[in-house]
Amino acid sequence: MVQFSATARLDASFAALSDATRRGVLEQLARAEASITDLAARFHMTLTGMKKHIQVLERAGLVVTEKIGRVRTCRLGAQGLADEAAWIAGYHQLWNARFDALDQVIAELKAQENLDEPERH
Amino acid sequence: MVQFSATARLDASFAALSDATRRGVLEQLARAEASITDLAARFHMTLTGMKKHIQVLERAGLVVTEKIGRVRTCRLGAQGLADEAAWIAGYHQLWNARFDALDQVIAELKAQENLDEPERH
Repeated sequence: MVQFSATARLDASFAALSDATRRGVLEQLARAEASITDLAARFHMTLTGMKKHIQVLERAGLVVTEKIGRVRTCRLGAQGLADEAAWIAGYHQLWNARFDALDQVIAELKAQENLDEPERH
Repeated sequence: MVQFSATARLDASFAALSDATRRGVLEQLARAEASITDLAARFHMTLTGMKKHIQVLERAGLVVTEKIGRVRTCRLGAQGLADEAAWIAGYHQLWNARFDALDQVIAELKAQENLDEPERH
């Protein structure tokens, strides 16, 4: 089993999520495990096409597969998307902090404006 | 301006997030706007390399750029990552529901097991 760094894992999982069919497969597997044949039929795709998508999801750790006889069954990997959610949440915090800082600058400019107003004696 | 469907937008934004440098650029721009030259220097990259990354982020709507004179300044787009966070949250709900369903099946199996125990008179 290949060990990825946290960064390489995020690269692989965000890349895996960048395709509507692969997102659909994850949603489907969250409902029930399925064979590659089932998934190919459901997503109107060739077996070869679906195999490629599953490989991308498998490499990202989002899906695990098991071959019993001639049937390869897919289910969700243990990893989930917690790290991806955490990255997006951290980014939102930075973003909000940026807009808060902007609000403060505007407030300071307004306060400055009031100070600059000619005093009335 | 090209209008994307919600699906195509998710494809583009998750693909944009699948590279550590591009995620770093977003984090950097959440702190302060910057020119492409600044970003290339900060991420130890050629100007051409950084321009390509910025184009990917721009196409995904995550970054906007403005050229004033010879300097192209980058800042965060208005879009943010709310849709991406929502997709991941929705997926987690499905996932949790699946594990809840599994818990229920186990509980029912256990209840069944108790019923099947020989009655003592």
